[in-house]
Amino acid sequence: MGILTLTTDFGTEDGNVGVMKGVALGIAPALQIVDITHQVAPQNIRQAAFVLARQIFYFPGGSVHVVVVDPGVGTDRRPIAARVGGQLLVGPDNGVFTPLYQRAELHGWPLEIVDLTAGQQFWRNEISHVFHGRDVFAPVGAHLASGVGLHQVGVPVEDPVLIPWPEAARQGNQIWGEVTYIDHFGNLFTNMHAADLAGEEILAVKLAGVEIEGMVNAFGERGPGTLIALYSSTDELLIAEVNGSAAMKVGAKVGDQVLVNLRG
Amino acid sequence: MGILTLTTDFGTEDGNVGVMKGVALGIAPALQIVDITHQVAPQNIRQAAFVLARQIFYFPGGSVHVVVVDPGVGTDRRPIAARVGGQLLVGPDNGVFTPLYQRAELHGWPLEIVDLTAGQQFWRNEISHVFHGRDVFAPVGAHLASGVGLHQVGVPVEDPVLIPWPEAARQGNQIWGEVTYIDHFGNLFTNMHAADLAGEEILAVKLAGVEIEGMVNAFGERGPGTLIALYSSTDELLIAEVNGSAAMKVGAKVGDQVLVNLRG
Amino acid sequence: MGILTLTTDFGTEDGNVGVMKGVALGIAPALQIVDITHQVAPQNIRQAAFVLARQIFYFPGGSVHVVVVDPGVGTDRRPIAARVGGQLLVGPDNGVFTPLYQRAELHGWPLEIVDLTAGQQFWRNEISHVFHGRDVFAPVGAHLASGVGLHQVGVPVEDPVLIPWPEAARQGNQIWGEVTYIDHFGNLFTNMHAADLAGEEILAVKLAGVEIEGMVNAFGERGPGTLIALYSSTDELLIAEVNGSAAMKVGAKVGDQVLVNLRG
Repeated sequence: MGILTLTTDFGTEDGNVGVMKGVALGIAPALQIVDITHQVAPQNIRQAAFVLARQIFYFPGGSVHVVVVDPGVGTDRRPIAARVGGQLLVGPDNGVFTPLYQRAELHGWPLEIVDLTAGQQFWRNEISHVFHGRDVFAPVGAHLASGVGLHQVGVPVEDPVLIPWPEAARQGNQIWGEVTYIDHFGNLFTNMHAADLAGEEILAVKLAGVEIEGMVNAFGERGPGTLIALYSSTDELLIAEVNGSAAMKVGAKVGDQVLVNLRG
Repeated sequence: MGILTLTTDFGTEDGNVGVMKGVALGIAPALQIVDITHQVAPQNIRQAAFVLARQIFYFPGGSVHVVVVDPGVGTDRRPIAARVGGQLLVGPDNGVFTPLYQRAELHGWPLEIVDLTAGQQFWRNEISHVFHGRDVFAPVGAHLASGVGLHQVGVPVEDPVLIPWPEAARQGNQIWGEVTYIDHFGNLFTNMHAADLAGEEILAVKLAGVEIEGMVNAFGERGPGTLIALYSSTDELLIAEVNGSAAMKVGAKVGDQVLVNLRG
Repeated sequence: MGILTLTTDFGTEDGNVGVMKGVALGIAPALQIVDITHQVAPQNIRQAAFVLARQIFYFPGGSVHVVVVDPGVGTDRRPIAARVGGQLLVGPDNGVFTPLYQRAELHGWPLEIVDLTAGQQFWRNEISHVFHGRDVFAPVGAHLASGVGLHQVGVPVEDPVLIPWPEAARQGNQIWGEVTYIDHFGNLFTNMHAADLAGEEILAVKLAGVEIEGMVNAFGERGPGTLIALYSSTDELLIAEVNGSAAMKVGAKVGDQVLVNLRG
């Protein structure tokens, strides 16, 4: 059967997501196709990378995740596929898999990446210069989800493109990080993780001139309108407003600095 | 095979809908998953309840409907599942199923509700304080759609949480109701139903200082721009503008009063 | 198994798309259902026609494409189904299939159209005056996708409704066309096609007081912010801004005139 997920900056109005599914189903009629998101901001590779890295490890092993945020389509950027932690990835070699490569390194997982250029028998017959999602990535993904091996669809790559991926920095009892993502509710994600903060007591979280004391476990522990700090469902330190939008309340944006004070 | 539907206030940009599907497919690989809506306004339990109650009885019996509009996630609000009229429901015990309980009572259907807390073997192993959709409701829904029994996943609940659900009131030849929902086209739904009005002749519908004479059957019976009253596809009295938005034309919002004059 | 696609102006917030899927799955439990788009502007038959005609031929033969942009629902407009180039279509007889009929004529494909009124045994039992998507088109589509024959669901139609579908016109070394569609990225589609321009050298493309010299193959050939002309993934002449929105940059809208100068 197999699972294929899609992450793009296409929006959903033009039918370009649907057509990728049509092509994939022509190859693998029993596929389970799941949309991760099609609302990545146009050409925002970092945003796609963040969403993908948060979500894919909840899928069954062997799921194939096709990503099409691809401003370099039709140029000499490589089309690639990869295996990370039992999940398969397909997309452009533009850095969109950077945090997944880092996770492989962190966990000591094997990391296999292949250049799809060598496996054009798995592409559509006609290749548009502007839509490799339909003509390269969806068909290769469908083949992988059908059991074709990673090393059948391409040849090894040792030098994948990476994008900068800023980490939080500790100085004594302070951690300096930044806002990495703002979700549908206006919750602010940061690049500080529960694993890094294990055993520490957080006294305060500061950003945009606002200070939040301590942490809570759940939204419902404070009244509507209260700013809170808590861990997200994927263990990032999160700044939120109960039943509201922290992003609007504090006027924050991606890249804003966040400071955490720990008990000494 | 089984059908699982999803109704949330998550939007579709963050991948939180996709990850629920990934978790469900890990349990039930052949599921048919259908999105009802992910555009419920944040924390708007009433809106989710309205959409759900309108739509679920068109699904095949035994379909499982997972609802995640859940401001109380991580507090002591109960996670529940229920069976109403052959449809299965899974979500937080916060009143979101109120109109479905009422329907069961109206039709004399048996109503079974269970507290999922007793059935944690059907949850994910690790439970986030902030995302029970992924960790509790999607997995329980997938198990139910795979044939696990309602009374295997929890223990009976006799006192589900209810939210107020205003009914229209008749006084002589007048019925007072309200706008309950505004759809994508700007059509205004009311809490007056065809069944309640059977055998009556509607002379006029009034709201927001506007009066509409009589009823039509279909949009195309009047010219573009005309305000009309008709029955919705689910038999609510509807106020609409032909090829336009009644909500914008009359400046109406949910909760606005609607008055219907009947022939005496 | 079978593939059913959906193209509507319903948006995704009200559950009306989900309910069509529920009805279809009640008839054909193993269907693969694919959304083409639900963001057609309300009642915009031309926009739906454009998206549909661009996308459906990438689907496997025998796929069924249900279209519900249907301002005439509940009036005497006919419900129809058709077969064009191996793809099946279901929807209102309001001209939404016009460019597909033209393509059949262009390629000399047989064109079969049937009026569904004669096949009400394939509809839901109760038919709303306002939602034939749920009660007529989804069920008929599900039956067709399950192998019911086109001539079982209706009787032949010889006079389908057509809408005007403007073609580009050549005068010497100039081609006059227009903007036909604006996509998610703000790219401007025109009614000039690669096949019509084969063997020609395009010197310049002009619209809205802006002139673009020559053509490129891919976005990445020019720097961000540059206006370019290139062929779309479906071979229309496209005007785009690299990593930006041509629609916003030049203030263009559907129907604006486009002029192409060819080398003499």
